[in-house]
Order: sequence, then structure tokens, then C-alpha cells
Amino acid sequence: MSLLSTIAGDREIEALMGDDAQLQAMLKVERALADASAEAGLISSEAAVAIGGGIEGFEPDWPALERGMARDGVVIPELVAQLRKAVPAAHRDALHKGATSQDVVDTALMIQASKVLDVLQSRLADLIAQLSALEKGEGARPLMGRTRMQAALPTTWAHKLASWSRPLQRHLDAIEAMRVDLLAVQLGGPVGDRSSFDGKGDEVATGLARRLDLAPAPPWHASRDRTIMLGSRLAAVTGSMGKVGADISMLAQTEVAALRVEGAGASSAMPHKSNPVAAEALVALAWFNAGLVGTLQQAMIHENERSGAAWTLEWLTLPRIFVITGASLRIGLGLLEHIRLT
Amino acid sequence: MSLLSTIAGDREIEALMGDDAQLQAMLKVERALADASAEAGLISSEAAVAIGGGIEGFEPDWPALERGMARDGVVIPELVAQLRKAVPAAHRDALHKGATSQDVVDTALMIQASKVLDVLQSRLADLIAQLSALEKGEGARPLMGRTRMQAALPTTWAHKLASWSRPLQRHLDAIEAMRVDLLAVQLGGPVGDRSSFDGKGDEVATGLARRLDLAPAPPWHASRDRTIMLGSRLAAVTGSMGKVGADISMLAQTEVAALRVEGAGASSAMPHKSNPVAAEALVALAWFNAGLVGTLQQAMIHENERSGAAWTLEWLTLPRIFVITGASLRIGLGLLEHIRLT
Amino acid sequence: MSLLSTIAGDREIEALMGDDAQLQAMLKVERALADASAEAGLISSEAAVAIGGGIEGFEPDWPALERGMARDGVVIPELVAQLRKAVPAAHRDALHKGATSQDVVDTALMIQASKVLDVLQSRLADLIAQLSALEKGEGARPLMGRTRMQAALPTTWAHKLASWSRPLQRHLDAIEAMRVDLLAVQLGGPVGDRSSFDGKGDEVATGLARRLDLAPAPPWHASRDRTIMLGSRLAAVTGSMGKVGADISMLAQTEVAALRVEGAGASSAMPHKSNPVAAEALVALAWFNAGLVGTLQQAMIHENERSGAAWTLEWLTLPRIFVITGASLRIGLGLLEHIRLT
Amino acid sequence: MSLLSTIAGDREIEALMGDDAQLQAMLKVERALADASAEAGLISSEAAVAIGGGIEGFEPDWPALERGMARDGVVIPELVAQLRKAVPAAHRDALHKGATSQDVVDTALMIQASKVLDVLQSRLADLIAQLSALEKGEGARPLMGRTRMQAALPTTWAHKLASWSRPLQRHLDAIEAMRVDLLAVQLGGPVGDRSSFDGKGDEVATGLARRLDLAPAPPWHASRDRTIMLGSRLAAVTGSMGKVGADISMLAQTEVAALRVEGAGASSAMPHKSNPVAAEALVALAWFNAGLVGTLQQAMIHENERSGAAWTLEWLTLPRIFVITGASLRIGLGLLEHIRLT
Repeated sequence: MSLLSTIAGDREIEALMGDDAQLQAMLKVERALADASAEAGLISSEAAVAIGGGIEGFEPDWPALERGMARDGVVIPELVAQLRKAVPAAHRDALHKGATSQDVVDTALMIQASKVLDVLQSRLADLIAQLSALEKGEGARPLMGRTRMQAALPTTWAHKLASWSRPLQRHLDAIEAMRVDLLAVQLGGPVGDRSSFDGKGDEVATGLARRLDLAPAPPWHASRDRTIMLGSRLAAVTGSMGKVGADISMLAQTEVAALRVEGAGASSAMPHKSNPVAAEALVALAWFNAGLVGTLQQAMIHENERSGAAWTLEWLTLPRIFVITGASLRIGLGLLEHIRLT
Repeated sequence: MSLLSTIAGDREIEALMGDDAQLQAMLKVERALADASAEAGLISSEAAVAIGGGIEGFEPDWPALERGMARDGVVIPELVAQLRKAVPAAHRDALHKGATSQDVVDTALMIQASKVLDVLQSRLADLIAQLSALEKGEGARPLMGRTRMQAALPTTWAHKLASWSRPLQRHLDAIEAMRVDLLAVQLGGPVGDRSSFDGKGDEVATGLARRLDLAPAPPWHASRDRTIMLGSRLAAVTGSMGKVGADISMLAQTEVAALRVEGAGASSAMPHKSNPVAAEALVALAWFNAGLVGTLQQAMIHENERSGAAWTLEWLTLPRIFVITGASLRIGLGLLEHIRLT
Repeated sequence: MSLLSTIAGDREIEALMGDDAQLQAMLKVERALADASAEAGLISSEAAVAIGGGIEGFEPDWPALERGMARDGVVIPELVAQLRKAVPAAHRDALHKGATSQDVVDTALMIQASKVLDVLQSRLADLIAQLSALEKGEGARPLMGRTRMQAALPTTWAHKLASWSRPLQRHLDAIEAMRVDLLAVQLGGPVGDRSSFDGKGDEVATGLARRLDLAPAPPWHASRDRTIMLGSRLAAVTGSMGKVGADISMLAQTEVAALRVEGAGASSAMPHKSNPVAAEALVALAWFNAGLVGTLQQAMIHENERSGAAWTLEWLTLPRIFVITGASLRIGLGLLEHIRLT
Repeated sequence: MSLLSTIAGDREIEALMGDDAQLQAMLKVERALADASAEAGLISSEAAVAIGGGIEGFEPDWPALERGMARDGVVIPELVAQLRKAVPAAHRDALHKGATSQDVVDTALMIQASKVLDVLQSRLADLIAQLSALEKGEGARPLMGRTRMQAALPTTWAHKLASWSRPLQRHLDAIEAMRVDLLAVQLGGPVGDRSSFDGKGDEVATGLARRLDLAPAPPWHASRDRTIMLGSRLAAVTGSMGKVGADISMLAQTEVAALRVEGAGASSAMPHKSNPVAAEALVALAWFNAGLVGTLQQAMIHENERSGAAWTLEWLTLPRIFVITGASLRIGLGLLEHIRLT
């Protein structure tokens, strides 16, 4: 669906959340896990070195990974099986020792999320700067305020721009603040209690976190409040952009003409038209992310120590929310460059 | 629907969000607004005193308020009309001076939300204490860990109880932290730029905030990120409780019998049954709140300076989320008292 | 929340779905069940007469019903216990014989839904007639067609009104068609296989259906496709009304002025305003029902022979969808009376 | 995201909804439109032949189509521009004559939907046959009925299998019935009133429908009830499959062991485990589609004659619902082959 992805896709975020990026993040986790396990004395230093070497030159068998994913519902069992072959027989048992699939997938997700947030935060900052520049240049221009679909009283563009900018600043601050607690290592072993690490689980987790630049944390495999609140925040970001889009499409109406969008969309039937498609896209993306977050919230309910159903549901929604948020910010940046106040 | 409200209702929260409570909060806002306006020199001290007196003895005409709500989509125009009659003619213009309906409704919502959060936080704290006591008493008992609907490896109840308790503690901390920024006065006037307050808007807002024990803030009438993130957090609270309910109903299955629920529900056809209805209710409430928050997120999109549609949508969802969260915590407290580990 | 119910409530539908109406429908089911059971020879005719007499003069103990609902997650065990006391001891076992709670609640729901659909269909027909009259009177008037928020090409009001009316006619036809299959008796006994009816389950079900003017059907206790597709259809009805509301609020904008809404809402701050609150309400109700139907669809998943969680979720959503649909049609009828084309 | 698509993807449906398939369907529409327009006398026969020839050998410039999509919010303006170059200058004006982008996209969608429904209906029929065979072979085996997460009373597998099969049959019947009305040509011109077809719009629409094996219909560009009810039905299909998945994962629990899933998923940490991942996937897909349909229902609200936002939202949800439904049926077919009753 590449045509639609010009609207709802985001190459940068998609790359960060794609199979290759996930594989690299998972390999990084397995390697750091080996190193941290060696440091804690759970495996030998030789084993860690051997594992590092095996991962270094690892070439995945993608078709087999796909088959494994379909069969096991998670890619790790097959990936670990492939990795084992790349490690000398004497050290194979040290690979992934004590860990469970979710430890690797969730910790890799945090590595990926960290990069995604870098991108989204940077775009948010750019948008805020763009709005600030607009405000400096054109804030004093008059604008009719409109409430409940009716002209109300005159105000200024400064006021409108602030109503766009302030929530973005709050989102940026909130995302920055939530990183500390959110971007945490997941290490629990099969049932999430670290009992598989011979009493060294906390130490391994701390070493793993340090190596991956993540926070240490108790296992959170079945407690998805942080990932889900991240999704909620990003849906709200898209919602704030949707408000910008709604305003622009309302103000660009032929009869209102408080602004126009330069280079707006063509019609196949009406050459005179100039459709504010980017503004409409912001609204559509906001609605879509709002719906996704309602679904993501369902994924809070992990029965017992791991729910394949709830976890899969998170995979179906959270990465998509990342992409839609990216698309919304990307489109918003382009749109603001093209609005001309009248 | 009072039968169903035994499951999905919460008398305490419903009272805090009901018409009477809202009216009292709105009257409090109008009065504090008059006092703050007098302090700022926008109206005379005599006017403020007269308004205070009028509000003091005010008896609303409820049927007229209902008609006003239906006609105007918001109750304030009719309420202010009624209040004006209770104020001496000379001071009537000073009532509600500079303000718009949304200033009063939103600020009143913050007064109400503050009390709702008090209740929810108190219940969260009680739940955490209850889980802590359970952990102290029975944490060492063995429990089979279960992942992906299959028995996995043995663990202990301490681990299970921690997986229930930790997210609740994070929610409690997050709600406490978000109060500071969330519970803010809304004062903007008709189009939200305070231009209707003769240059004294900021001063009036500060005085209003101080009197109502709310934070001062720039107008946020069309920026719903804070109310919507509150709804998202509360849905996540309900989600965490839903996880507890899912665990309990899974563990109480006849064949699993890792716990039983004392005093559980009867069947009309099978006297031998003991249905974990409270646990199931926690799941249903979590699903319901998850869906509501997906809808609430749609309410981010206020076109221009006020959207009657988006605002109404927030009214339809946010107070319901408060009630469902209250019900979930209330039911959870009762349920935890009745589980017997086996 | 009675103020808000002027927008989102509907007294007529609420009465049909309220506790009293549900109780009456459930009593009707128990009585018809006794008669059908006597006809099938499952219980004696004397027992059926005695049960009928007991139900005739039955006075419920509401507080006890509420306690029963809270305890059992369904009101039937307590209701049957109360009813038993109203029946001579010799015939008590014949009451509710073979049946389970869900048989009574679901069949009662169908009785209630039948009446709700009567009301909704009648309003739909009225709306279609209203639009047809408008079309006859004013269809030839010119109207600018607008696409993607821009003026496009001139068209006529006839075209606009047809775009409002046609989907309503399709909804009306679809609801009429779905009644046949939807409004079916539910009779399955404890696990839904009619084994509790001594081989006479099909006969009892047929007699029950005939007496209640419902279709006979195999048990559908855990197969909610019909109730859920009803909810989906009604959400689409609300969606079609939301489109009418969106059009009216767009066309009533100050600068567009293709119509005005007579007697529209007042502002507390701006006497010159005329807010199209009914049109906005249609949009809000459409959004809300759309969200509810997303949640209702979750209730498809009944694990095994009955899910207390999924069933409760249906109770939380489907009756609310009925009410919101009623509110939307009610508001739409009022709104169309007040639009004045310009 | 190809790894995840082993669970949530469906190559067959994705191919039918992909860019290439959409392009072919759109070319088919443009060609049939030219032929129907010639038949109606709107364009000359020579023009129709020339257009047919141009389309015959047309090679799209995909990067330009992507740029056009991003710019115009719909691919048709750029596609028509490219197609015009493939038609002799004398006949260029006859291409796409009277039509608007949405006519082509929506009619193409119906061509695609028809094929998608063929696949889904075929899979539904296969599932019903599979369940029927299971019932014949093993229906008499005893099974404990379970309600509200508790063992209730014994029943048989025949009863369970019927509870899985009957809703699927109802879905199959409903989809077959809805095809007649759903799969209709969309032809309206710029504002949807066919005024751009020189009085020959109805005739062109009829000829277009006949050529494309679709029903004729009045324009429905801004009336999405049929596409949205299709999405709702498909979500319900996925819901019925989710119920099958929930049952299987519940019955396959270690302690319940009423069935086992042969070849079930491996764990990276626990070799003894056999995870019912296909059953869990059915649940996750049902939840996901339920959420999507809540969002799709929002797309009912097309303001005025075309909403770019609502239309885009439909694109983001409906094709995804097709794919998820396909995945659910595909996985269900595989899963039923692998369950072994115990």
C-alpha cells in the first residue's frame, strides 16, 4: 500500500520499526545480555566473547525466521536457534541463558522506541520553532475568532498560533519526562521473576541496562502501563496536530479565506480547486491514532504471566501509532511552510 | 439502569460528577470570578459582594436549566440569566463579566476532578496496602506461573502480587504528579484570548486560581491534552485492574483452582457453581474504559476556538471514565478481600 | 447526569430499556416459559397456572434485586428466588425449569429490542418524510456543492436532501429486514444445549417463541453476531445523522450562510451568536456511538459457553447505543424543522 | 513489518488490495467509463476506442503517481494526466469525461471488494465444511460445558462445534446477501449529482455498471453506510473466529486439556511448552478488527459533498479490515486442522 503511505506512512519511523531494525536491536540485546551475564558470573567470559563473535558475523535466515514467527508467535525461538549455530558448541548454552523471548523483544522495543522518540521529539521541536517564527512574523495580524462553527469576536493570529504551539510544547515536555521511566530494560526469564538467573537476575538486569543505555527496572512483561501510556501520549500528539489540520481546513474554506495553502491539491474534475489535503490528512491521522489507542488500551490485560493475544495486539497497534504520529508531524511541518495568511 | 450500576456505577464518583455537584462548582466559580475581578479592579467590590450574596441564597430553576441546556448546548447562558435575577440590578453586569460559558464549565470541571482524583487516589492507595498485606501474609506460597495460556514454571504469589501492585503504584504516582499541571483554572473569555477582561485577564485568572486552589494557566479551552491524558491514565488504571480480574478468573477456574473467591456469584440453574463475577466485572470495565478513551481522544480536535461537537463528546466520555474507574477500584477492593489462595 | 441527557438521552428509549421494563419483560418470559413447558409436558398445567398467578401479583424487592445483581453478576438468581416465594410450594420447582439466567435475560432483551426498534423505525420514517417534504418544497433551490472543504460546483438542494435521505431509507429497510432473524427467543439451559429440558427443549423453545411473538432459533447465548450487528447498524444510523449535522453546521457558518437554524443556541458572552447546537450534537452522538460499537464488537468473544465479562460489556454498550440512536433521531427531527434555507 | 504479517497479514487479500490491483481496477473503470459514455453518446466511439488503446498499453510512472497522491490526496488527477498522454490529442478530453476522482476510486474499490469477498466467502465455506466434518467424526464426544470461567455441566463436542459453525454460516449468508446492494457502481461527477454528464449520467452509470458486473446505483460518494456495514460484518466474522480462538486456548490449558493443538508454538526458554499461538492470534485479530470498525464508523461523517479526512480514514481502515479478516480465516483454517480432542 505504498500510495497511501505517502499520507499515512513515514519512512524514517518505519525503518526504525522494521524487521531489520528489530533484528539489530534484538542482536544487541542478546550480546549485551551475554556480557552482563559474564560480568555477573552467570556465564564465563569466554562464552560472552564467543557469543559476541557469533552475533558479530551473524547472517539471519529470513525465511526460517518468518516460519518461526508464524509457528511460535514470536521470532526469538527460531532466532536463538539460528544464533546457537553461530556460536561454538561449548558456549551455546550460555546464549540467551535464563532469558525468555519477551525479555529480548521488549528490551529491543525500548531500544527502538528510544530512537523513534528522538525523531518525534526533534520534529515536535521543529514545529514549535516554526510556529514561534510565524508568530513573530505575523502574530499581530487580525483573525476572526470562531466558536461552535460561528464567527464570534476578532482576535489575532498570535492567539491562534499559541493555541497550536502550547500543547505541542506540553507533549514535548511530557515525552522527555516519560523517557526516564519508560525506556527500561525488560528482564524476567520465563515467568518474569528472574528465578532462572541463579540469583543473579538483578545484577544481570543492571548490567544489561547500563550496556544498552536503558534504565534498570523490575520485570514489566505483563504490566504494559508504560508502553500504553506512551501510545496514549502519541495519540494526543496526533490529536493536537489534527486540531491544527481542522483549523487550517476550516480557515481555508472558499468563503472564509482567512488563509490559503500554497501548492494545495488538484482535483481531477475542477481545475479551479485547491484542496487542503495535508490539513485533511492531519485530521484523518488523528482520528486513526485515537482509535488505535483505544485498541492498544485493551492490551493492558495480560492474563497471568504472558498473554500471547494481548502482546500481539500491542504489536499491531503501538508501532503503527509510532508511524502515524511520525506521519502527522512530518505532514504538519510541510503544511505550516505552505500556509499563507490573508 | 440502576441494576447495572451495581457493577458499572459508583455512587461516590457519580455524586461528585452529578448535576448538583456541577452546579455547586459552577456557582463557586462565578463567585470566585467576581471576587477576583473586584480584586483586579474589573468590577467594584460592592458588585462582588452583591454577587456573592445572590449566589449564597440562589435556588436554581432546574426545569429551566434543562431547557437551556437543550437549547444552548451548555447550561451557562440560562444559569447566568437565573443568577442575574438574584443580583441587584445595579450589579448584574458585573456577574460573569468577561467570561464565557466554557470558562465556568471547564473550571468547575477541574474543581470536580480534584475531588474525584482524591477518591480514586485513596482507593489506589488502599489497594496497594491490601496487596502489600497479602504479600506479607502469603507471598511465600508457591504458584504455577502461566504464559500464553499454558503452565510454565513455578513461581510464588509474591511475584504475582507484585505484578498487580507495581502498576497501581505507578498510576498513583503519575496521577499525583499530573494534578499540578492538570488542575488549572480556565479563563479566556469568548474566544479564549482574555481580551474581554480589559487587560486584566491574567490578573483575574491568577486571583481565580488562588481562590479555587487551582493552578493559573493560559487558556486551554480548545487544547484538551490534559483532560484527555487524564482519561487515558484512568483507562490504564482500569486496565491494570482488568489484569487483576483476568488473573483471578483464570486462577479460579475449576481445573486450575489456584485460588477461590469466597462468596462468589450464584447461578440460577447450577447450585454447585461459584462464579467470579467481580473478577469478570473488572475485565468488562477495563474493556469499556479502553473503548471510551479511544473516543475521548477524538475530542482533541476542536475546530477553531471552540467545538460544540468535540466538547460534547468529552462530556459523554470523561465523566463516564471517572465513574468506571471508580467502579473498578471499588470492585477490586472488595474482590481482594474475598480471594483465598489454595 | 440529567442536564446532559437533554442532549444524549432519550426518555422513550430509556424507559424501554430501564429496570422496570426489563423486569416486566423477564416476568413475561418466565410466564411464557411456564406455559410453553406445560404445553410440551415438561411441567403440569397446574404448575403453569400457579406460576402465572404468582407472576401476576408479583411485587419485586428491589433492594434485594440490586444486592443479587451485585453478587451474582446477573439479576435472575435473586429474581427467581423471589418469584418462587410467590408460587405455591408444590409448584416451585416448575418455575424457571430447565432454564438458565441468560435464557431469560436474552429473551427479555429481544422483547425490549423489538419495542426499541419500533420507536427508531418510526422516527426514521418520520425523518424520511420530513426530508421528502423539504425536497418537494425547496429541492429546486440552488446550493453550492462543496468537496474537500472547498466550494466546488453549483448543485441543488434536492441533491443534498437525497444524500441525507437515501441512507436513512437503506437503514430503515435493513432494520426491518434484520428483525426477522434478530428477534429470536434464546433458550438453551445451563450450557446452552437444551439438555436440561428432558428432550423437550425444541418444543419449549417453539412454544415460547410463539407466545412472545419472537422467532424460534437454536441457542445463541455465546454467539452475539446478531445483537452486535444490530448495534453496528444503529451506529451507522447515528453516523448518517452525524453527516446531516456536519452538513448543517458547515452550511450555517457565518460566512457560508447557505442556511440558518431558527431558534439556535445562545452564548453566555456573545448575544449576536446563533449556535447550531443540535447539529453539533448529531456529530458528537455519531462519534460516541461509533466508539461504542467498536467496544461492542469486543463482546463477540465469549469464552466457552458464557463469558460474564463479554456479556457485561454488551450490557454496557448495546442499551447505550439504543439510547444514543434514539437521541440522534429525536434531535434530527427537531433540527430539520428549524433549518431555513437562504 | 513482514515478520508480523505472518500473523496479521494475508498475501492473497493484500495482493487484491495492493497498488497494482488498485491501478488495474481503476484502469478498468476508466475504460468501461469511456465505452459506456460512447454508448450513451457522451463521447464518440472513436474516442472510446482510442482511450481503450491508450489504457491497453499504459505503463504508469509510479514515482509520479506517489508524488501526485501526496500532493492531491488522491491518485486520480496524476493518473488521468498520465493516461491523457497515452491517448491521441484529439480524444484526450473524452477520457474521464464528466467523472471525478471519487467515481473512479470508489468503483475500483467495488471491483476489488468483489474479489476480496470471493476469497473470504470461500474460506468461510471451507471453515464450515471443516467444522461439519469434525462434528460428524467427533461430535458425540463428551465435553464439559463451562460458563463464567467455571465448569458447569457436561455437554458434547457437537454442541461446541455448532456454536462455532452457526455464526459463520450466518456471516456467509449475510455477505452473500449484502453483495447485491453493496457492489454498486459509483458515478456522480464533481459534486455527485451527475450534472457533469450532459443529462446522460444515469445512462452512463447503467452502462458502466453492466460492463463492470456491478449494480447501478444513485451516487453514494458521501454516503458510506454500505462500505461501513461491510466492515462491521467483517469485524463480526473476525469476532466469531476470535471466539473459536478463545475457546481453543481455554480448552488447551494445561489443567483443562480438553484438546491439544498439534505442532503448536515453541518457547525460547521452556522446551516442554506447546503454546496455542494460532488460537491467541485469532483473539488478537478479533480485538484489532473490532477497534478498526469503531474507527471506520467515524468515517460515516462526510461533511458536504466529499470529505478528504473521512475518505482517507476509510482508506486507512477498510482495506486493513479486509486483510485482518483474511488472516483470521486463514489462521482459523490451519488451526482447526491441528486440534486434537482428548
